[in-house]
Amino acid sequence: MAIGTHIFRNSSSDDKELKKALKNLLGFAPKHLPFYIIAFTHRSSNEQLESNNERLEFLGDAFIGSIVGAYLFKKYPNKDEGFLTEMRSKIVSRQSLNEIALKMGIQKLIRFNKHDKMLRRSNIFGNSLEALVGAIYLDRGFDKTEQFILKNLLYNYVDIDDLEATDFNFKNKLYNWAQVNNKVVDFITLGESNEAGRRVFTVGIEVDGELFIKATGYNKKQAGQTAAQKALEQLGEVVE
Amino acid sequence: MAIGTHIFRNSSSDDKELKKALKNLLGFAPKHLPFYIIAFTHRSSNEQLESNNERLEFLGDAFIGSIVGAYLFKKYPNKDEGFLTEMRSKIVSRQSLNEIALKMGIQKLIRFNKHDKMLRRSNIFGNSLEALVGAIYLDRGFDKTEQFILKNLLYNYVDIDDLEATDFNFKNKLYNWAQVNNKVVDFITLGESNEAGRRVFTVGIEVDGELFIKATGYNKKQAGQTAAQKALEQLGEVVE
Repeated sequence: MAIGTHIFRNSSSDDKELKKALKNLLGFAPKHLPFYIIAFTHRSSNEQLESNNERLEFLGDAFIGSIVGAYLFKKYPNKDEGFLTEMRSKIVSRQSLNEIALKMGIQKLIRFNKHDKMLRRSNIFGNSLEALVGAIYLDRGFDKTEQFILKNLLYNYVDIDDLEATDFNFKNKLYNWAQVNNKVVDFITLGESNEAGRRVFTVGIEVDGELFIKATGYNKKQAGQTAAQKALEQLGEVVE
Repeated sequence: MAIGTHIFRNSSSDDKELKKALKNLLGFAPKHLPFYIIAFTHRSSNEQLESNNERLEFLGDAFIGSIVGAYLFKKYPNKDEGFLTEMRSKIVSRQSLNEIALKMGIQKLIRFNKHDKMLRRSNIFGNSLEALVGAIYLDRGFDKTEQFILKNLLYNYVDIDDLEATDFNFKNKLYNWAQVNNKVVDFITLGESNEAGRRVFTVGIEVDGELFIKATGYNKKQAGQTAAQKALEQLGEVVE
């Protein structure tokens, strides 16, 4: 076992407990525990650990993207790549992953600074879920990673048909935010370009007449949706 | 074999030739040819095909991201996720993939409208390389996809150490572009926020005093690099 684990694990009973919790969470047994210990260590933790979970988060984020992408590709054989991109961004958005992590109960396993109240309101649980996926990939390889994402994460915690139906949620939610906060929101087409033979549109969102955010897409509707989603995330509004 | 293939394949000798070319390109034999035929069909092609390669491009893009990400994660055990993100974006940028595709000779296999001169200057070859990766994943699964990306694409066509050394290339290249085109380029810090306990910086690039593009990063240097890279891509400058 790596040296690092001794520094902050008290006893082998801790390890036993973590193993049990992981087996429940993953649906299969973990092999190399230190990967998971790092996955559940936020940088705010005061443990004297060499590494926190940010590198694993990078790794897990990438595999969630490709595995969810492949799932959507097969589920929707007649939808174009714009639809697939939009559906995926709904599933893997910071807010969505954070909610899934909370439903999974991952917060109980994470070591972070519990006195920092802001942290609880941020997306550290979703980030730790990404790191967990990175740990699974290192520990058990691609097939188990895919199994966890498809059979556990998507199957238990994501209502795909419901997500598909809430097509115009972001734009509506942003208008809603504007009304509550007494702001004026406008969608404006900023440009149109040709990229590898496809038209690409850039849509911007103005808040009270000032450009707040912009996004691109293969049609104006899609670019507007993406821009609205980015705006809501930046405003700290929960996107479902 | 799918009906679609009859519409635009003339003979079984075409298939034989494609199989041979693919075996050379991939290092292993393809099983289900129609995936690859679609991967090499650009939307500008006048073939009466039901589908073009854009959905496969979505799929391949995701797997290139996760496999290159995992490769970098293992190659650089002591680098943080900001470095990993930056290195990956250099490898998988549209321009980089387009150059790799041309070196691989993929352009000879793609069906596109050869009278459209603009297309040749766009990134359709890199996009087709992404689609090819999607086809490999569907045809032969994750392990062969990984093998193609690691042992063929990265090993033969990407000089990682060289990429690592060209750390400040984007910013310098943008200043260079400004000089040649008689423009004034400024990097400005637009904001700083706290995201899950980490500071996130937004850096914008002004061209002749007008905000042209912005990007975020975990430090100003990284955000500036990303913004410069995005600016160069938008300006149509080749990023090496």
